[in-house]
Parts: sequence; structure tokens; C-alpha cells
Amino acid sequence: MPDRKTLTFLIGGARSGKSAHAEILATALPPPWTYIATAQAYDDEMRERIALHRSRRGEGWTTIDAPLDLAGALAALPDDRPVLVDCLTLWLTNHMLAEHDLDLECRRLAEVLSRPRGPWFLVSNEVGQGIVPDNALARRFRDAAGRLNQQVAAIADTVLLMVAGLPLKVK
Amino acid sequence: MPDRKTLTFLIGGARSGKSAHAEILATALPPPWTYIATAQAYDDEMRERIALHRSRRGEGWTTIDAPLDLAGALAALPDDRPVLVDCLTLWLTNHMLAEHDLDLECRRLAEVLSRPRGPWFLVSNEVGQGIVPDNALARRFRDAAGRLNQQVAAIADTVLLMVAGLPLKVK
Amino acid sequence: MPDRKTLTFLIGGARSGKSAHAEILATALPPPWTYIATAQAYDDEMRERIALHRSRRGEGWTTIDAPLDLAGALAALPDDRPVLVDCLTLWLTNHMLAEHDLDLECRRLAEVLSRPRGPWFLVSNEVGQGIVPDNALARRFRDAAGRLNQQVAAIADTVLLMVAGLPLKVK
Repeated sequence: MPDRKTLTFLIGGARSGKSAHAEILATALPPPWTYIATAQAYDDEMRERIALHRSRRGEGWTTIDAPLDLAGALAALPDDRPVLVDCLTLWLTNHMLAEHDLDLECRRLAEVLSRPRGPWFLVSNEVGQGIVPDNALARRFRDAAGRLNQQVAAIADTVLLMVAGLPLKVK
Repeated sequence: MPDRKTLTFLIGGARSGKSAHAEILATALPPPWTYIATAQAYDDEMRERIALHRSRRGEGWTTIDAPLDLAGALAALPDDRPVLVDCLTLWLTNHMLAEHDLDLECRRLAEVLSRPRGPWFLVSNEVGQGIVPDNALARRFRDAAGRLNQQVAAIADTVLLMVAGLPLKVK
Repeated sequence: MPDRKTLTFLIGGARSGKSAHAEILATALPPPWTYIATAQAYDDEMRERIALHRSRRGEGWTTIDAPLDLAGALAALPDDRPVLVDCLTLWLTNHMLAEHDLDLECRRLAEVLSRPRGPWFLVSNEVGQGIVPDNALARRFRDAAGRLNQQVAAIADTVLLMVAGLPLKVK
């Protein structure tokens, strides 16, 4: 039985198996499991992706939607319950589109994550290993996402880099 | 002498030394060596790249072109022969441009890879660690490539992430 | 006390904590510390980034600007002094924009790096793990950066892949 007050951070590229691996880790612990979804269904492509993730999870999961107030959703949860947050980059995107203060939002989140709670599993995207994007908004997002990932990784007890569905332990 | 019935999967970014490292691993085994090329020479840039790879390989290699029927080409090979497939992402691109059913093609390939044959060395690209691409086709390709990489990594005995020419063992 | 004649190569995506980690490693050694900046302040965004890096470094650092003649700047330094080069991809960009011979410049740099000097800390970007860029110039840069990273990693004593601010040892 692992220590329950832990934060596991899973980072990886698109389709690297982050969510699936986080589900395996969470469901290795006793239910009930809480899934915090940050996705907003803007279009059909996103609706499809959300439905796919939801159908894969199956029984035993409670889903909470928190596209913006992730810190509040996490703070409101009972202690010692497996929670999967999927994912931080979408949450950041939502705040960016809403033109919120990203530094402030990231600090609020980091504060909640710093309290010994959990076991929590946080999923995020690595978006900084391609060519510098042409447009300034994409560059700004890339910078903000990288800083957020660093903040969360610094707090986390375990950091896994997902590569082709396999976890590579970074911390 | 390593067990000959093995599958080694090398994944990495562009110019990360995937092909060169796969050649080192393959030629550490006794010849004859078979090189399965999936590239199609659409333009001068690609023709140059193919010629460069071919000249680096040198003597002792038999080259088979399999831009589409990779499963068939692998199935037709004799057992226990070092084979280098370079690369899976180009093969997937060819099927996508031909508007084939990618799920079906990936399943066919996975089936051939699941039989204990080899030593086989498969090269593929990590394409999911940049900013989300603007155009839908690129996103669809990125998703398909990520899923294929997960499938192959799950089957493989050894998975190496190539970083600046150096292998990082993932599995 | 680590052996002082060493080359450490830090590679990672944008905002992966490469520079900050390199500073931690360099300042763990006795001063004076030399910072070789390759950035050129083309625009406000870049000027801001340079100012941010400079303010983080603080006291004890001497800054040398070497947007193009990095090999010369390194060769001119006294032995046994901690040096941080930030970063190789910007240096390569500068040469590309100046339409210099990239192979020649990389060879000149590799030659200086091959002499037993240091402790030197070299920072570079991984830019090859996204979707293939649309424009030919970006593809050419990606190829050149990947080859340079391989050259430097081959020479380096230690290679670290930075992931969300954390070092993953590759060599």
C-alpha cells in the first residue's frame, strides 16, 4: 500500500498514454475514484475525445467538471481519495481564452497542490519540444504551460514522462 | 549473444539519431541485414534524405521497399534475420495520404509484430510534444502516430527513446 | 569536488528549466562564473527574455555576448573556469539568418568543445518532437539543430534531458 498523501505528475506528448496510465495508477487504489475533467466541449472533435475518455473509465468513477476553478474543486474534495485531474494544459488553455491572469491562477493551483493531500494524479502535456511556433499566442501558451509544468513537478512526489504509453521515472 | 527473437523499438524526434543507432544495434549481429524502407521519394528533399541514409548503411544490407505493405514484407522474411524498419511514421503517412483505414493497417502490422520473430529493429518518430497543430489533418496524423507508437511499444521487448543521438531505456 | 575538466550538455524543450538548472550546476562550483549569451535582441519579446535571465543570475557572473563567434569566445577563456553557454539553438539561428555555412560553424564549435576544458555547461533546445513543420526553412533549422545536438552530446561527459524543470540523465 503506497503512502496515500502523494502527488503524481504525468507529463507527455499528445497520445502518449498519459490518461490511460494515470487511470491504471488511480484504480490500483481502492474506490471511490474522482475524475476532474478540465475539457470544454467547444466542437465535435473535442466532444468525441471527451466521450472516448469517459467510456474508457467505466464504473466506479465520479466525474467533476472544473474547466476553470480547478483549485476550488480540489480544495472541496474529501481527504485521502484517489483523484485524477485530466488535464492541466486544457485548464490553462481555458484561462488563457478567458484572458485571466495566468500567473495568479497557477499560484492558486500550486497552493492547493502543496498541501499534503491525495493520492492525486495530475496529467499535463509537454508542448515545448517542437519548432518555435509562428504566432505569439502559441508562444505565450507554450511558455505558460512550461512554467506550470515546472511548478507542479517541483511539488510532486513522483514525476513520470510518458513515452509511447510507457512511464519513464523523472522523479 | 542476445536472444534473437526480439523486437527493439526506437522512438525519437527528428535528427535524434534513431536510424544510425538502429544500424549500430543491427550490425552488431551477424549479416545478412535487411533494411525495410518505407519512404517514398515525392520530392528532391526526400530523395536526398533517402540517398544519404542508403550511403551511410554501406555493404551487407539488402533493401526492401515497403511504403504500404509493411506487414506483408515482414511476414515474407525468413526467421532469425536482423531487420531494420525505417520508419513507421513515414509508413503511416503513406497510408494516410492514400486514405486507407489507419486502424485496420495498424492492427495488421501489430499482428505480424506480435509473433516471436526477429531480431527486428523498428524506428518511429515522436511527433506529439509540440504545440497542437493548426490544421485538422496534422492533428489526425499526430493522434494516429501516437496510438501506433503505443501499440508497438507495448509489443516490443526493448524501447529506446533517442535524445541527441543517445539511447534512453524506457523498457 | 567534481573533476573540473568536464562538459555538461543540457537539452530540453522550451520552458523546461534548462537555463535555471545549468545555473544551479555552475554556481555549485567556486566563482568567477562566465555566462556566454548567444541571444540577439531582435524585438521586445526577446529583450524581455534576456532581461529576465540576466536578473535571475545575480552577482558573481561575467556576461560575454557571442551571437556568432562562440568558438572564438570559448577558446579565449582561461582554463578551469565554470562557463555557461545559453544557448546553442539561438547561436545556430543567428548563423542561419546570416546565411553562414552551418556545417562549418558546427565543426568549428565541436573542435573547441573537444579539447579538455571546463567545467562547461551548454544549453540547447530539443526542437524535433513536434509535427513536421510546413515551411522548408523551419525543417532545415530542425535538421541542423538535431545534428548539432548529436555532435555536442557525443563529446559531452554528461547529458541531461530537462523535463518540467527536472534533469533526466541520458549520459
